Formats: sequence, structure tokens, C-alpha cells
Amino acid sequence: MRQSATAISPTREENFAEWYQQVIAGAELAENAEVRGCIIFKPWGYAIWENIQGLLDRRIKETGHKNVYFPLLIPLSFLQKEAEHVEGFAKECAIVTHHRLEQDATGRLVPSSPLPEPLVIRPTSETIIGAAFSRWVQSYRDLPLRVNQWANVVRWELRPRPFLRTTEFLWQEGHTAHETQEEALEEALHMLDLYEEFLRTELALPAIKGEKTESERFPGAVRTFTVEVMVGDRKAVQAGTSHFLGQNFARANDIRFLSREGKLQYAWTTSWGVSTRLIGTLIMTHGDDNGLVLPPPIAPLHVVVIPVYHKEADRVGVWERADRLAAKLRSCFYRGSQLRIEVDRRELGGGAKNWYWIKKGVPLRVELGPRELATQSVSVSKRDDPPKEKQLLREEELVERIPELLESIHGNLYQRALAFRQAHTRKIDSKEEFFAFFTPQDSDRPEIHGGFALTHFCGLREVEQELKEALKISIRCIPLGEEPEQGICPFTGKPSSGRVLFAKGY
Amino acid sequence: MRQSATAISPTREENFAEWYQQVIAGAELAENAEVRGCIIFKPWGYAIWENIQGLLDRRIKETGHKNVYFPLLIPLSFLQKEAEHVEGFAKECAIVTHHRLEQDATGRLVPSSPLPEPLVIRPTSETIIGAAFSRWVQSYRDLPLRVNQWANVVRWELRPRPFLRTTEFLWQEGHTAHETQEEALEEALHMLDLYEEFLRTELALPAIKGEKTESERFPGAVRTFTVEVMVGDRKAVQAGTSHFLGQNFARANDIRFLSREGKLQYAWTTSWGVSTRLIGTLIMTHGDDNGLVLPPPIAPLHVVVIPVYHKEADRVGVWERADRLAAKLRSCFYRGSQLRIEVDRRELGGGAKNWYWIKKGVPLRVELGPRELATQSVSVSKRDDPPKEKQLLREEELVERIPELLESIHGNLYQRALAFRQAHTRKIDSKEEFFAFFTPQDSDRPEIHGGFALTHFCGLREVEQELKEALKISIRCIPLGEEPEQGICPFTGKPSSGRVLFAKGY
Repeated sequence: MRQSATAISPTREENFAEWYQQVIAGAELAENAEVRGCIIFKPWGYAIWENIQGLLDRRIKETGHKNVYFPLLIPLSFLQKEAEHVEGFAKECAIVTHHRLEQDATGRLVPSSPLPEPLVIRPTSETIIGAAFSRWVQSYRDLPLRVNQWANVVRWELRPRPFLRTTEFLWQEGHTAHETQEEALEEALHMLDLYEEFLRTELALPAIKGEKTESERFPGAVRTFTVEVMVGDRKAVQAGTSHFLGQNFARANDIRFLSREGKLQYAWTTSWGVSTRLIGTLIMTHGDDNGLVLPPPIAPLHVVVIPVYHKEADRVGVWERADRLAAKLRSCFYRGSQLRIEVDRRELGGGAKNWYWIKKGVPLRVELGPRELATQSVSVSKRDDPPKEKQLLREEELVERIPELLESIHGNLYQRALAFRQAHTRKIDSKEEFFAFFTPQDSDRPEIHGGFALTHFCGLREVEQELKEALKISIRCIPLGEEPEQGICPFTGKPSSGRVLFAKGY
Repeated sequence: MRQSATAISPTREENFAEWYQQVIAGAELAENAEVRGCIIFKPWGYAIWENIQGLLDRRIKETGHKNVYFPLLIPLSFLQKEAEHVEGFAKECAIVTHHRLEQDATGRLVPSSPLPEPLVIRPTSETIIGAAFSRWVQSYRDLPLRVNQWANVVRWELRPRPFLRTTEFLWQEGHTAHETQEEALEEALHMLDLYEEFLRTELALPAIKGEKTESERFPGAVRTFTVEVMVGDRKAVQAGTSHFLGQNFARANDIRFLSREGKLQYAWTTSWGVSTRLIGTLIMTHGDDNGLVLPPPIAPLHVVVIPVYHKEADRVGVWERADRLAAKLRSCFYRGSQLRIEVDRRELGGGAKNWYWIKKGVPLRVELGPRELATQSVSVSKRDDPPKEKQLLREEELVERIPELLESIHGNLYQRALAFRQAHTRKIDSKEEFFAFFTPQDSDRPEIHGGFALTHFCGLREVEQELKEALKISIRCIPLGEEPEQGICPFTGKPSSGRVLFAKGY
């Protein structure tokens, strides 16, 4: 539980993967659990998730979706209803086969009472929700049907990484059914827009909206849309996806309705989700060599008040002032919510306290000591500034300016991430340049490569597969909303109607 | 999805168990899932849970607990660390044995890739949280450690009943570690008080606080405290529990700390929880022969506005007025929260609409038709009044009086439940009276018995067991806070130092 009062070691430059682990440890976000690939969300990490949930849940409800909760366990026969779907998840399913423990002859506890049909812990809930939809949807009057659930899911991970790829993770999954293809497609795209807006507005993450190629589609989907974020090592993270499922799951689950024309028709469905991987994306995008950096809207604390004194005689005065200031700040608002404030009451030096909160990524640190007391002022440090930078503000000025200070941090984080992405995105038209872009210049640091490549592509699946194997890259998406641009695929010389986004990904 | 515009059939008198199922169906709270013993929370049922969560979560945080999230899957060896604990849960554990599906020779999907050690889906998390506590607690300075999690748990149920007893359920589980026995016991009792206050204030449920006898204790606990509620068929529901675990789990998980005196000591731990069974308790306590009745603080809607008109010419005027009223009400507050309002826009008659919302238990229905339009008034119906009772209020009067109307419903529900419990609670001093109290008078309705019996008891476990078998009753608790009362156990003639609460239970 003890932390050292220093920056993160190693730095991002030295070893990005290890830096990531150390930021998580330093901010006390999570730790590895005993079960392979699972993590324990510690209070600071879980509070970030609660804030993400609260802000996103409001948006999902405002767009007319209702929350529900479906069972964790799915009968194997359900999963098998959609052929591509089960194929996509078969290799990573946790399977419940027994419902009792018994002692064997040696006194050891062993599973007993085998189930007549194995149950799968949900890797996602299309099949079990589809079965309910088939009961709930009878007529066009029952449509659109739009539900969402916050849940845990399990996908067995062989190469886990905290938050980004864990065997169990937390997410929301939206599921909707519609009368027409157009309406379902519109829903899928609308939720993609909502995710992009949410990432930008609440997490300060600039995302590229696009469509996945066939080989990267969700198992069973007709079209998969994605929001892709570039993180600090120039790799891509798929931060959220939205699927147009066509009538595939409606057929598999017999979701049919009597249309306005009196005909029995299959519904058109969608699903969409974001998960606790957003926390990993946040860390890797905004984190710096001093630790975590949190966008204010989802920070568990907006401001930490740090009383600092060296002489025992100053103690009472400094503490009283800190409490008064905290009380005053608690009655202030940022984006319609009460400010989240804490006074650091520990008996520690100012340096140790400051570093503790720097590593936790708190947007504003307010120091109070005898000097500040004498001048009715406070020393304010913004987390996006260097650790030692402070501005002396009069107390009333701080109270007045807090919303603006927090917004400036948010805007700064967003702009910094956007500029970083732009600096490491290149339009590439030759195979040589493409290979060079994705080939590390320094063999000691194989993780440093070019970044995002926007390249013409003929669409051949084999080419996509070859590039994947050769360079460990994938097509992250075909960006949406771009002007059509005729060109030549540098890999085959065939014509291409637009650039796609290649990158290494998590 | 269609509902009939009538009361619930059968009535509570006719068949309480079936009435319960019909209230759930009529209010669209939940339905049975395909996996045995699991339910699907439909939007109305889940919204009630979200409101319960929100209000309880705030209280838990205000008392200094921090939310965390631990993994769903627990290694079998962890569960075995505490002997009584594993014995208590061994018969109801869902066990994961494989992490992959493969096709067999006939093309059928079967579990493959067996796990080296089976994993148990958490039935509760003392063991896995205890393992983390042993890492987090090193010194007395790390104590008290107080965390809480909102999670799903699985306990294999052979006789499931929606909300009250389901294989998977949702709950919060608090876990704390302390320096001293006194502090841990105080924590367990404090959380019990918090639960009682929460049940009373937010759910209008009068609860009896007490301690469980040894045979009813949580597996591994030293003392188990409970809040017991009498529901509509005079049975008891254990609505929440709080456990003083002594040093049992600290020993099992090696949670030790360096004390103020520099000695290595085992910590003292507690755990406490309430679950979605609260929804079942609500339904059975407040529900009437017309359907669900919701206490205002947790109702998904406080008020439904029902436009009613017969002539097409009235349509526009009535709708406009309904929208204006809804907008006005949305800016009003009840207990510090914005009123939750909906306008029923369906093309249905007033009777059908009214019955729909009666069955859903909405506290206030506000009807608006041409008559009300002409007089600038509205017809207001309270859910705790008979269905046809209405009061005509001027619009401004309604807006002004809504908090008071909602509070009056809440108070009324609480008083009604309390009076019902008091009417069916009896102090009993003879064995004959006791047996008669718990023996149905009418063999056609075996569920109707006396209710709660407060009876002296010598404490013998065998007597408790015999009564359980003979009358299907149990000691719900030894009530707390009662004056000591010397007496004679009517079953053995031995001395007793106080009355215990006997009842049939869910």
C-alpha cells in the first residue's frame, strides 16, 4: 500500500508496456487476481468506472433505451443457434458443467452433479436476449425494441493485459430490434456517433469512426462499426463497437413480427457496447511519465486540498483553513455536478502528498500552508502542467475559476491526444514506405513504429491476412465520412475506392 | 406484451403464491429465463433495482465504504480455506471446469480444454476478498479497511421463486477488516441499523432487527444479524444480513497486521449484504389485489399523466395540456430528486390506461380530459386508495402538493405494513397455543397460519430442529433491543432469558 514519492519508472520511452503496469500500480487502480487474466478493481479504478457508467448511462437512456438484466449463464444450445457467432466465441468460453461439490474418497472436494446441458458464461448476450425478443416481438407495434444492460462477461484470454484485455470484464451491451433495415442501420450508426461524442466530451479521447472489414467483424454481424483511438505507443485501441446484425440473429432466434401489411417478417437487429477497456485507453492516451492523468468529468476527485506545514504551531490554522476551503468548494459545480473534493489529512510531507495525487491523476491540487494562510491565497497545480508548476490564486479567485480550470485541462488533454495522433498518421501510397512505416527503426525498442497509415486497399482478404502476419498490423477500419478518393492499392496494383486505416492494435 | 384491464387473478386470499406470480407478470417486472432458477429483469423490474441501488449506495459511501469489484470466478482451493464456509456452500455451487468448446466426431459442440483447477462462480466473496485483504493489510494504519461491491452471485436453487430465491441474483456485499473485536462488532451492528433505516425510509418496510441462532448463521460467521420483514401471507423474509466474522476468515486467509504494540495479530472482519430479494419483499408486503404498489422513493415513475378523450376534436387540446403539465411536474422535486414523470401517449381508453399503471404500482395517476381542461383542474388518484377514487385538484394545487401526496403514500404503506405485522404477531407461552398458531385452520389453504410468534426458548438446537420439521417454521431471530425477560421455554420447561421470533419463512 506504500508508494514512493517519485515519477513512474520506467518512462514511456524506455518501456511502454512496463510503464503501463506501473501507472496502474502507482495510481492503485487495479491488481492482478489469482484467477488468470482477471483483475481486482481497487477503489480508485472502480470509481472511474462508476463515473463512466453514470455519464454514459444517462446518454443511453436519453436516446430511448431501457435498462434490463439477463442471466449470466447461457445454455450451450442457444449459443449454437447462429453458426458464425458460436465459431467466433467457441475458443474463449468458460463452461459450467456441474452444480455441486462433493468430497471424494481422499477427502478432496471435486465437482459433482453434472448438468444435463453445459452452460456458458456469457461472452456477450445476443443469443439469450434474442430468445426473449422472439417472445416480446409479435407485431410492428412492439418495435422498435431497445434495451441495454450493464454486466460482466467472460472471454478466456491467453494474453491478458489489465483493463485492455481481461478474462472477465465489465461492459454495457445494447440490443435493439427494428421494423426495417434502414432503421436498424440508423440505430447502429447513431450509437456509434453517441460513443464518439461520449469519448470526446467525457474522456477527452479523439476517436476515428469507421467500419470494420469482413475479417474483423463481430461474429454473426452484417456490418461492424468501430471507434478507434491512438494511444501513447501509437497503437490503436478499439474503444467501442456497434453492429448492424441484419436478420441473422432474428432468423437464429425466430424474432418475427406481423408487419403493417399483415405479413410475418423477421426483425432487423443491432448490438453495441463499450467496456472497462475504456479505462486502459484513458491510461495509455493521457498518462505521462509521472503517472495517471484523468479527464475531469470522470475523475473520482476533481480537486485535492493538501495542507502543508512544518511547524506544529501552524497545524491548527492550516487544517481549519483547508476544511473551510473544502466546504466552500463542495458547494461549487462543474458541468452540473457538485465538485468532488478531498482533504489529504495524512501526516506526510508536502512532496509525498503531491506525488501521491499526481500519480492518481487528480486534475487540480490545491496546496495550503502558512505562507498561503498569510495572504489569503492558495497554490494551485494543474495535472497537465509539470509537477512543480504552481499558480498562486486568491481563494475567491480559485472558487470562481474552478470550472474554467477544469475545462482547460479537459480541452488540453483532448488537443494533446489529437495532435499526437495527427503527428503519427500518414497517408502512404507505396508498399516500401508502408513497410518502412511499420518496421521499428531501433531493434531495442520494437514497439516504436510509425503509427496510423491511411492507405488505398483493393479489399482482398488474403492481402489483409499477409500484412497481418508480416507486420503484425490490421485494418482498424474504413473511416466513415471521408470524401471518396480513387486510387491504387499499393499491395496489388488494383483499383481502390478509398483509404483504409492500418495500425498495430491492442 | 398485452395486458388485460382488470385486477389480479387470483386474489391474495385465493392463492398467495399464484397471486405473486401474476403481480410480477402484470407489472412486467421479470420473467423466467431458460436457465433453471434464473430470471430476466424487464425494464420496470430493473428500474426498481437501479433506484434501490442508488439510494443504498449513497448511504454505504457516506459511512466511509469504498466500492470495488472482485472477480466472478473463485479458485476451488480458496473456497476450501474456511471449513464451515465451504460446507455451507458446497451443495449449491456452479462450477466452471473447461474454457473452450470443440466439435466432437459427430459435429456436436462439447466442452474442451479442462482447467487445471475448477473455478466456482462466486456464491459470495469472503474468500477471494480475504486473499486481497491479506495483501492490503500490513499494519494497524491500514485499518479499518472497508469496501463494498455490487455484483451478481450464483447459488444453485432447487426451489426457485422470482426475486426471492433465484440461482443468479444481484446484490451488494460489504467486507471490512478491523483492529479490534469491538470495532468489528460495532461495524456489523451499524450496517444492520443502516439496513433497517433504509428499509423503513426508502421501501416503507418495517423490519425487526435481531440475531440468528447458531443453526441459521452464515457459514463461517461468529454472529449473524438480520432484518426480518413480515410479508402479506404472514411469513418472514430475511431482507438483509450483517455478519461478525470474528477472526475466522482472517485466520483462513492470513489477514494479519502489526498492532500498535508491535505484535502480529489477526484482523477482525465483517460482511453484510442485501439483494434483489428486496424486490420480492416489496411486492409481497405492499402489493394488493390490483397489483404492484410501489413506495415513491424507488418507483421508476412518481406520476403518470393520462390524457383521456372520446371525441377527436378534444385530442389536440388534451395532449397539449398533458405535455405542459408533465413539463411543469418535471421541474418539481421530491426528496431532493427531480420528479420522474411520463405521459401515457398510447391510443387506448382511460380504463385500460389506468389499469396498466395500477398494476405497475405507480404512486400517482393524473387524469386529464375535456372536463378537467375546462376547469383548469386534474383528477388525481393515489395508488394506496381504491382504483376508482379520485380527487379533483386545481393544477397549481397539484404541483404544490405533490411532495406531500407522495409522502402520505409512503407513510401509509409503512403504517399499513406495520399494523398488519402487529395484528399477526403474538406472544405465546404454551406449546399448545404455539402449535395451534402455526397449524392452518383451513386445510384448503395451508398457507394461512398465525404469523410471528414471540416465544421463550431454552436454546437447545435439537428443539429448534424438531419444531422446524414439525411445523416448517424456524427461529427468524432473537430480537435486539428488547428488555431482558425471564421465562420458561414451553417446549422443554427449561429457563429462558428472552423471547425469540418464530415464523415460517421464504
